[in-house]
Amino acid sequence: MRHDNRAVNEMRKVELQTDYIKHPEGSVLISFGDTKVICSASIEDRVPPFMRGQGKGWITAEYAMLPRATDQRNIRESSKGKLSGRTMEIQRLIGRALRSVVNLDLIGERTVWIDCDVIQADGGTRTASVTGAFVAMAIAFNKLVEQKSISKYPIKQYLAAVSVGVDEKSGPILDLDYVEDSKAKVDMNVVMTGNGEFVELQGTGEEATFSYPQLNEMLQLAEKGISDLFAIQKEAMGSFAENMPTPSITPENSSLGDKK
Amino acid sequence: MRHDNRAVNEMRKVELQTDYIKHPEGSVLISFGDTKVICSASIEDRVPPFMRGQGKGWITAEYAMLPRATDQRNIRESSKGKLSGRTMEIQRLIGRALRSVVNLDLIGERTVWIDCDVIQADGGTRTASVTGAFVAMAIAFNKLVEQKSISKYPIKQYLAAVSVGVDEKSGPILDLDYVEDSKAKVDMNVVMTGNGEFVELQGTGEEATFSYPQLNEMLQLAEKGISDLFAIQKEAMGSFAENMPTPSITPENSSLGDKK
Amino acid sequence: MRHDNRAVNEMRKVELQTDYIKHPEGSVLISFGDTKVICSASIEDRVPPFMRGQGKGWITAEYAMLPRATDQRNIRESSKGKLSGRTMEIQRLIGRALRSVVNLDLIGERTVWIDCDVIQADGGTRTASVTGAFVAMAIAFNKLVEQKSISKYPIKQYLAAVSVGVDEKSGPILDLDYVEDSKAKVDMNVVMTGNGEFVELQGTGEEATFSYPQLNEMLQLAEKGISDLFAIQKEAMGSFAENMPTPSITPENSSLGDKK
Amino acid sequence: MRHDNRAVNEMRKVELQTDYIKHPEGSVLISFGDTKVICSASIEDRVPPFMRGQGKGWITAEYAMLPRATDQRNIRESSKGKLSGRTMEIQRLIGRALRSVVNLDLIGERTVWIDCDVIQADGGTRTASVTGAFVAMAIAFNKLVEQKSISKYPIKQYLAAVSVGVDEKSGPILDLDYVEDSKAKVDMNVVMTGNGEFVELQGTGEEATFSYPQLNEMLQLAEKGISDLFAIQKEAMGSFAENMPTPSITPENSSLGDKK
Amino acid sequence: MRHDNRAVNEMRKVELQTDYIKHPEGSVLISFGDTKVICSASIEDRVPPFMRGQGKGWITAEYAMLPRATDQRNIRESSKGKLSGRTMEIQRLIGRALRSVVNLDLIGERTVWIDCDVIQADGGTRTASVTGAFVAMAIAFNKLVEQKSISKYPIKQYLAAVSVGVDEKSGPILDLDYVEDSKAKVDMNVVMTGNGEFVELQGTGEEATFSYPQLNEMLQLAEKGISDLFAIQKEAMGSFAENMPTPSITPENSSLGDKK
Amino acid sequence: MRHDNRAVNEMRKVELQTDYIKHPEGSVLISFGDTKVICSASIEDRVPPFMRGQGKGWITAEYAMLPRATDQRNIRESSKGKLSGRTMEIQRLIGRALRSVVNLDLIGERTVWIDCDVIQADGGTRTASVTGAFVAMAIAFNKLVEQKSISKYPIKQYLAAVSVGVDEKSGPILDLDYVEDSKAKVDMNVVMTGNGEFVELQGTGEEATFSYPQLNEMLQLAEKGISDLFAIQKEAMGSFAENMPTPSITPENSSLGDKK
Repeated sequence: MRHDNRAVNEMRKVELQTDYIKHPEGSVLISFGDTKVICSASIEDRVPPFMRGQGKGWITAEYAMLPRATDQRNIRESSKGKLSGRTMEIQRLIGRALRSVVNLDLIGERTVWIDCDVIQADGGTRTASVTGAFVAMAIAFNKLVEQKSISKYPIKQYLAAVSVGVDEKSGPILDLDYVEDSKAKVDMNVVMTGNGEFVELQGTGEEATFSYPQLNEMLQLAEKGISDLFAIQKEAMGSFAENMPTPSITPENSSLGDKK
Repeated sequence: MRHDNRAVNEMRKVELQTDYIKHPEGSVLISFGDTKVICSASIEDRVPPFMRGQGKGWITAEYAMLPRATDQRNIRESSKGKLSGRTMEIQRLIGRALRSVVNLDLIGERTVWIDCDVIQADGGTRTASVTGAFVAMAIAFNKLVEQKSISKYPIKQYLAAVSVGVDEKSGPILDLDYVEDSKAKVDMNVVMTGNGEFVELQGTGEEATFSYPQLNEMLQLAEKGISDLFAIQKEAMGSFAENMPTPSITPENSSLGDKK
Repeated sequence: MRHDNRAVNEMRKVELQTDYIKHPEGSVLISFGDTKVICSASIEDRVPPFMRGQGKGWITAEYAMLPRATDQRNIRESSKGKLSGRTMEIQRLIGRALRSVVNLDLIGERTVWIDCDVIQADGGTRTASVTGAFVAMAIAFNKLVEQKSISKYPIKQYLAAVSVGVDEKSGPILDLDYVEDSKAKVDMNVVMTGNGEFVELQGTGEEATFSYPQLNEMLQLAEKGISDLFAIQKEAMGSFAENMPTPSITPENSSLGDKK
Repeated sequence: MRHDNRAVNEMRKVELQTDYIKHPEGSVLISFGDTKVICSASIEDRVPPFMRGQGKGWITAEYAMLPRATDQRNIRESSKGKLSGRTMEIQRLIGRALRSVVNLDLIGERTVWIDCDVIQADGGTRTASVTGAFVAMAIAFNKLVEQKSISKYPIKQYLAAVSVGVDEKSGPILDLDYVEDSKAKVDMNVVMTGNGEFVELQGTGEEATFSYPQLNEMLQLAEKGISDLFAIQKEAMGSFAENMPTPSITPENSSLGDKK
Repeated sequence: MRHDNRAVNEMRKVELQTDYIKHPEGSVLISFGDTKVICSASIEDRVPPFMRGQGKGWITAEYAMLPRATDQRNIRESSKGKLSGRTMEIQRLIGRALRSVVNLDLIGERTVWIDCDVIQADGGTRTASVTGAFVAMAIAFNKLVEQKSISKYPIKQYLAAVSVGVDEKSGPILDLDYVEDSKAKVDMNVVMTGNGEFVELQGTGEEATFSYPQLNEMLQLAEKGISDLFAIQKEAMGSFAENMPTPSITPENSSLGDKK
Repeated sequence: MRHDNRAVNEMRKVELQTDYIKHPEGSVLISFGDTKVICSASIEDRVPPFMRGQGKGWITAEYAMLPRATDQRNIRESSKGKLSGRTMEIQRLIGRALRSVVNLDLIGERTVWIDCDVIQADGGTRTASVTGAFVAMAIAFNKLVEQKSISKYPIKQYLAAVSVGVDEKSGPILDLDYVEDSKAKVDMNVVMTGNGEFVELQGTGEEATFSYPQLNEMLQLAEKGISDLFAIQKEAMGSFAENMPTPSITPENSSLGDKK
């Protein structure tokens, strides 16, 4: 049905390679199909000015694409001298999402810098970024615990993100690639936690609208995709995945039960 | 129950003063309680480079706050030399929302510049901006029709926006003022059309999450608030409101019926 | 004689609405005819680095126009990423003018931020800004006195500003609106104090020159206009106007006596 | 009486070295005492976009100081990435002043770029800049005439500028050096033409005010200084000074006669 | 002898993975030990304004590092809003070096954009960038030839770069890693062509100097390293390496013969 | 042979005028033929943040050209809001070169700011800048010693710079002027110390290459030119030249002996 023969509720092939680069406290290379993002987590032993003296930590994210991550080369934001609105939106989203599942009191006055650098783009770069950044951050926190820099693992829940949308032919679909994304009139990014709650919901009809039934169908697809991602994250993290509560949502066991 | 004694599904006092300033093709002063925004619509007889030669128009929005619109004075973005991520997010939202209800083919190669300038802020500035900007734009299009610059009224549906959120004590509430907004852990902005469809849904749990039942309650409150706003927009526009389909959603007649 | 039938020495209708917005310590909406400016005064409890440790205060001003305050929409300076030379000149003028009538030693290490935001422009925005900002500042200082934050009212004299110019037909005229301003070859802004002294004199012949007799005629018109403005300021301020010396110049009683 | 024993109406030693650098169409090194400015005039064979198609020319000026032109080193504006308000004010003043004495129709669609670079500063840099720039421009126009690029000499009148001010001890004084300027509470820059008319008058009381009699005394001093400058300009220009009307004001023959 | 047991004239392990990312016309991942750079070549069908109408092409390069490519996280240049001097120097070097071996007339009015993005840094990022960028460009040109967009292969010679330096203990050494680079007082980057000529020579004694004999020793090491790199480039390029003259310099056969 | 009849190993006329401007601790006007640069050295009594607390000093340089120093007027970098890559390269080179001959421990926590401002350009501006800046710095250090601010003269060796290049007709030549520089395919800047060691070597073949024999010929020319410059520096410095070791290289006595 879909141009690459996926079912409407099927993710692209997702891969998570941990410790992809050597310097950061945590790093992964995540791919959602041809979308590839290097996510790294760096720990800095201080917090930004507005957080000082509160005894708690901060998490902030930056996002960028290599100029030729896309089909047409983009001008570097460093050459333009400013960030685009799109970049700012995405990096604010990543930071907020990660903060929602971390007990900031447990990390002390430290900043976690998340860097998501897209080396190849084929749709869904922001959801791959959230999903990969979560694992990079989990690795970095594990090191802090192992070094006894912090005493208790600070992550409260798993976290992952997918895009869903409405295709004119296929209807609601999961994990849009670039071809689908550029045709879809409705596009929604969903970030959820391991216990099936929402963290972010950003649905947009670009020169279009969507109905409540469509919204519900999209949310169910998103939950399915996110539960798939939790399984992949769990496996990539190996033994220290036990530091976090096992996700309660699975493809078979939806928390969005009232929609069935 | 709420600090200003409103019911959970009650809007603040909303006022719409049309033709507030004399130069723009359309302008309003909109207030949601103590939040006051000057919205203006300016018509330019050309489109940005990426739109040229397609015979259709474009709508773009800019948003700003006076430095002392808020309790603490903010540094001007013109002095800082760049726009904040928050400003970019908001102005992109306003532009996308307005484009979703306009037939861009009918306005020819013209750009509608929407300016939303917050002169006093008390929560909900982006939703007041969308709601007011819609009316400013409707007035400007009416002028184009009267001048016979365009032959057919290009607006397809009414458009309005409200914020909803989850308060720790009151639960889901409609149209948060600043005091409520700064305490709420979940905040959602909803933009809907006169026929009860969604245009934008932006829900965020800042260091928090929200459940599917909470989402549904918030959406129902949003629909109620938006149907109130449609009535106020209609009255402010007077006779040329007839150029647009009468909104089908009303406080009594919810399109989100399957949630009851 | 003039296109709006004013006498050469007649101001446009001037209105001063105090406490126009709720957050600043002092605010006014001032109008000179169709020119409308929101002026606010914000008190910050510290001074800029170059003033620290001297035990005295500072006053600084910022000026901006809404993009569609004018007949043609202007690009926002925040979007351009820098202030124009015109904006810088005006805000430097406003700040200098206000500092000339305040005893900075009496306000302690505080900064008064003046914001002049033009919401509608029809000539004379800088002179309306100075005139309105003076009242906003006077209100803010009155609050500081009432709160006993400062012990003595720090304003030494009234302050107001008008524009004068030379029209090809009418000769020297007072308070030019946009139509007159754009035709006049000579343009002068005059800031004076309640005791009839000059604070700023900025006369410019754009691709033109002016003679000494013309200068004197313009100064006399300016004094007349400024004495009118003092009366309006006094009334707007109400009882606390008594904190300042009553202006000695009036329309009937010119301090520029040697020119008669 | 003055710290360097000058009379109140006495200029510092003024020198004008023409053709100081080889590339520009016109250049001078001007000194007012220890203030030294390289002024150059460059002719570009097109006008800025807002002037195109009108068949007339444009004159624009830029002003800068070497970082160590002053007693304390200043940060370069190129390193800061933006021009200060002071720089903008000065370069706008120089440009306006020069345009007032040139018949722009006679130079065709050309731009004259004036560059005033202060290599050593000791007060009065903007007035030295105007005075020197006039000569650099006059030289450049002479070349255009000699090359028969333009048929008629386009300068209508001589142009020069001085500063005057009020010293607490000496009262009104002419041509303030840095020591005097930093103590004076009133500072006025005056630009006049060869026929004794004003082009610019910028008087400022920084945290001070000035009276009408003081204004008149300052204007008389300014006229005296400017008539001295005309003589020096005339001599520096040599034979082509005859292209312009001989200045009518001289130290002995004041056009401000009614003040005596 | 060296901290990683290399001989003084021994390169780190060099790997070249071609077609590393899918969108660019040519791309490689190059590694010099732990230094890893993604190099891509993008073909644009126009040249910059200063080259238009000459019928020849242009090659330009951009260079960046991921924030955590290094041991300490660096602030993004896009966030700072400007490029560092170091970045500019490197990207200018890469562009110049590549242009020296390409017959720009043969590529028509096209621009080759080279992007070198360092994903992991351990010394020698600029030399790895030049070496990898050459291969990415060679692949892109091969595509142009295959598509018959250009008729003749435009590369005149092989091109590669290495760093050499003087270590306090080991003396002159080849291909410094970060540990060696940060201790070395003399650092030289050498770019050479397949026929043994120099393209760039940039030697710097940071707070130190170097003698002529040291220079000669360094140049000989550089030639050795570069001849190693040519062999690796040749193998990576496969069959289309035949489009270019086989390098005449080899580890055994030095063109710097007079130094032996 | 050369267009101005110089021998291939002949410098243009070099002049060094000390104390050219009055405010800096050290200043010179240096000319290499028609290239004229004002070099100043300013002493600041603190170091940049990354140097604090180490008890040693820092030297940094800035370089700029007047807009009309060149044949065509250049846009000011302050107007563009950023430095070009060329400017950054040059000022980094000047700073590094000067630091290589100064014992930074002897100057305490002070910064030497070097400003090189080109007032007229005719090729070789960066080498004239290094050569002149060395003398300006030497003068400033002499003042520090005379004032007993520092106890020991901190300069270890003389320092000067020249450009060399390869001309298609003349072959290797010394000290290229603009006409030669714009035709030469190979361009090399050489910075050397009084004892005949290299500090910087920057050779570039723009769209060209150079051989090892050409390199050696160029280095020998450079040594000749630099030994000429040492003699001129020595004379300009007068008696305090004795604070530094007399240069050991002279036109007759080459340290590059193995090339003969």
